[in-house]
Amino acid sequence: MDSLQPVLAVLARVLAGFSIAFLVPLLWALGDGEDRSAQVWATGFVLTLAVGWSMGWAVRRHRRELQPRDGFLLVSMVWMALPACAAAPLMWTVPGIEWADAYFEAMSALTATGATALSGLDRLPLSVNVWRCFLQFVGGLGIILLVVAVLPLLGLGGMQLYRAETPGPLKDDKLTPRIAETARGLWTVYFAMSALCFLAYKLAGMDWPDAFMHMCTTMGLGGFSSHDASFAHWNSPLLEAVAIVFMTLAGVSFARYFAVWHHRSWRILLRDAEVQAYALVLLASIGVLSLVLAAHGTYASYLESLRAAAFNVVSLATTTGYASTDYALWPPFAPVLMIFLGCFASCAGSTGGGIKMVRMILLLKQARRELVRIIHPRVVNPVTLGGGTVPATVLAAVLAYMLIYGASIVGLTLLMLLSGLDLITAFSAVIVCVNNIGPGLGAVGPASNFGVLNDFQLWICSFAMLIGRLELLSVLVLFTPQFWRK
Amino acid sequence: MDSLQPVLAVLARVLAGFSIAFLVPLLWALGDGEDRSAQVWATGFVLTLAVGWSMGWAVRRHRRELQPRDGFLLVSMVWMALPACAAAPLMWTVPGIEWADAYFEAMSALTATGATALSGLDRLPLSVNVWRCFLQFVGGLGIILLVVAVLPLLGLGGMQLYRAETPGPLKDDKLTPRIAETARGLWTVYFAMSALCFLAYKLAGMDWPDAFMHMCTTMGLGGFSSHDASFAHWNSPLLEAVAIVFMTLAGVSFARYFAVWHHRSWRILLRDAEVQAYALVLLASIGVLSLVLAAHGTYASYLESLRAAAFNVVSLATTTGYASTDYALWPPFAPVLMIFLGCFASCAGSTGGGIKMVRMILLLKQARRELVRIIHPRVVNPVTLGGGTVPATVLAAVLAYMLIYGASIVGLTLLMLLSGLDLITAFSAVIVCVNNIGPGLGAVGPASNFGVLNDFQLWICSFAMLIGRLELLSVLVLFTPQFWRK
Ligand SMILES: [K+]
Ligand SMILES: [K+]
Repeated sequence: MDSLQPVLAVLARVLAGFSIAFLVPLLWALGDGEDRSAQVWATGFVLTLAVGWSMGWAVRRHRRELQPRDGFLLVSMVWMALPACAAAPLMWTVPGIEWADAYFEAMSALTATGATALSGLDRLPLSVNVWRCFLQFVGGLGIILLVVAVLPLLGLGGMQLYRAETPGPLKDDKLTPRIAETARGLWTVYFAMSALCFLAYKLAGMDWPDAFMHMCTTMGLGGFSSHDASFAHWNSPLLEAVAIVFMTLAGVSFARYFAVWHHRSWRILLRDAEVQAYALVLLASIGVLSLVLAAHGTYASYLESLRAAAFNVVSLATTTGYASTDYALWPPFAPVLMIFLGCFASCAGSTGGGIKMVRMILLLKQARRELVRIIHPRVVNPVTLGGGTVPATVLAAVLAYMLIYGASIVGLTLLMLLSGLDLITAFSAVIVCVNNIGPGLGAVGPASNFGVLNDFQLWICSFAMLIGRLELLSVLVLFTPQFWRK
Repeated sequence: MDSLQPVLAVLARVLAGFSIAFLVPLLWALGDGEDRSAQVWATGFVLTLAVGWSMGWAVRRHRRELQPRDGFLLVSMVWMALPACAAAPLMWTVPGIEWADAYFEAMSALTATGATALSGLDRLPLSVNVWRCFLQFVGGLGIILLVVAVLPLLGLGGMQLYRAETPGPLKDDKLTPRIAETARGLWTVYFAMSALCFLAYKLAGMDWPDAFMHMCTTMGLGGFSSHDASFAHWNSPLLEAVAIVFMTLAGVSFARYFAVWHHRSWRILLRDAEVQAYALVLLASIGVLSLVLAAHGTYASYLESLRAAAFNVVSLATTTGYASTDYALWPPFAPVLMIFLGCFASCAGSTGGGIKMVRMILLLKQARRELVRIIHPRVVNPVTLGGGTVPATVLAAVLAYMLIYGASIVGLTLLMLLSGLDLITAFSAVIVCVNNIGPGLGAVGPASNFGVLNDFQLWICSFAMLIGRLELLSVLVLFTPQFWRK
């Protein structure tokens, strides 16, 4: 590394920009007459802005164009610093909360994981829930930018495939103008879709605050709710239908929507291999699960089984993690299937977590190719995607990604076990954190929350959410000696 | 496929050869004065020989040199037909056994998995336990041949790496003479080491029958025992030490031993990357586990913790699966670590199961390479192993193998869950069967056995053991339409 200071200069600007986010709960607190909370949000705004400005002033002589290598450090620092800024106000507004829980909650919000360490959500000040939920909206903005605009430039874990597909003119080799150009296009789509989602929730029966908060957590595929009971609070098929539509939409790459808008053609979306696989997986899983629930007699009618299956499959597969029911009471096949879907179903470039559908497609294609190669050793059958041949380097990158993904899950699970958890809680907590899904099984199941974990376990989960959200390699590369060598 | 008949011609010869195995329990039954059992073994011998001969006679006009593609069909047919022949006598000798249990038991024996569906082993006729254990010895003979001599010729899942390393002159392109040549060398090593193991068990305190049976199940890394209590029956540190030595030895490729003997040089073994990693993983795991057991206060002294850790780590990591204690009562970290080791620690070409250490090394090297490539995109750093560069096709084959490995585990676990099992039992049963480890967790833990599963679940487990033993791809290739096309 040349020096930390150019990276800090950009981090300072990100912090200053992030301080604006505090205005959202501040306005809500003022409107709701929460004087004490309003002071907290105002303090958070001022402090974050002050930290950003003073940091920027301190390194003002060291500004330079960032190199790709600086990008990794910046990305990790942003996703570790913002949760700290976001967690501080929780310490003053949530009764009896500790720092590990507050940081976990903020990390869970900004990574759009949606695992909560809090209970009694309905009794919290309105602005605190607005903050939690709005952070998931901000996290969604961040992750779309990161995955579609930043990581492809850094050449990460198979994401090179997307390099050619980012919107914007790409006329410049410098990172910053390209990223700004791309961000404008993607965020416009994100904001437009969010506005529709907001109105739809309101029209379907939520009040304005709930519509706003659930819009935030739907579009970010985060899954926080302002109610302990989540969507079961309303028990409304219409609201669940709205949620299903917008969760499904947010699980598709926003770069695809941008392309649809840019070229005025829906065929780009409908002919995309990743979108096709995504739709197929969701429909097939809903079909299977509704039959299992009906056969098991969990619900009185098939229609009720179908409703429960549709909402919960879409919620878990898109890594949102809303619950309309305690699915831990369903036959154990159901939650395992749904959490498994969450590990891969979302499209790359969406706000969802997991390994992403495009990697799963590459894995399946490579597996089929290998089976054919065994039978016909001399046949040349390269893996193709979207009409082009996938280079061997991309396949090798996916292999490395999968190994690091598996090793992270096994290693963190062993640590959680060492800390005294049972296997199901430890394993499922790690799985849902690394894949940014939300609720797990066992002690961290949908009827419980991550508040039962001790500080050590919460820090492991925070780390798991961080590396999962940042596509693993971009964080873990910081742990290699080569990274720090000149 | 050209036609089934040339494959059946070879299968007929394998069956005829396998019939000789029945003579071992027959002799033991005669020596032990078990008249009824003796009749069963004699019948088994005659029937298997008759089936083999008549099948060979029926297809006598269709003998031809086998092609690689025939090999896949042959291998799967052998590993499905032999358990059927081996299971039949169990129906007459084990009280109240059903066909699904008998086939499971025979598959578990011949794949050297060592999961048992039987209890009351101590009350069975001696010759039945001899049969169960001897089948694991035979399974060891089969798997060494398969992995070192057959699969490399078929170019399977990264095993091409071993193509150049098989002993024997390799002067001929035809499969059969090469395989026969290779078998002679490897089996000599296997028999010699088995003789040493037999004597060591006898000298360390077992009686002759137990020494023979445990020699069979140690060398095959199978883990069956003639006692329900397994090694806890003796509670002898000396016997456990003998077991540790020979399990560790059998977890190394027999091709390596052959090379040591051929070149009269131990350096071949000591400088082998796979052997080094294997030794390191075993020692490190024993160290960690003994400390965890000591910290947890499971045993009175550190020495007892060390003894328990050493025996159980080596037993599970080599996929043997002997138990000296009910490790399900240990802190849950312990069994999870040990079963995880079983998934990869054994060397390719040993009698152990799992993905094999060589694939794990390739995965780790590829992960490290990718991390370096991210930092230095222009650096050329191919993955190397044993001084040579690993071709991209081998890495791609490993990727396909890993995907099929993961998909098999997830898919079979979901089936087991659908059949009504709890998650820990379902998941651990599939893991230990696909990796040919033996005892699992939950209802199939070391203090229980697979007899608690219903027929459907037992058939899934039998299938899992089969595909795991045959390196997955060689079975699953039969499910592709391309395989059956002309
Ligand atoms: K989520
Ligand atoms: K075994």
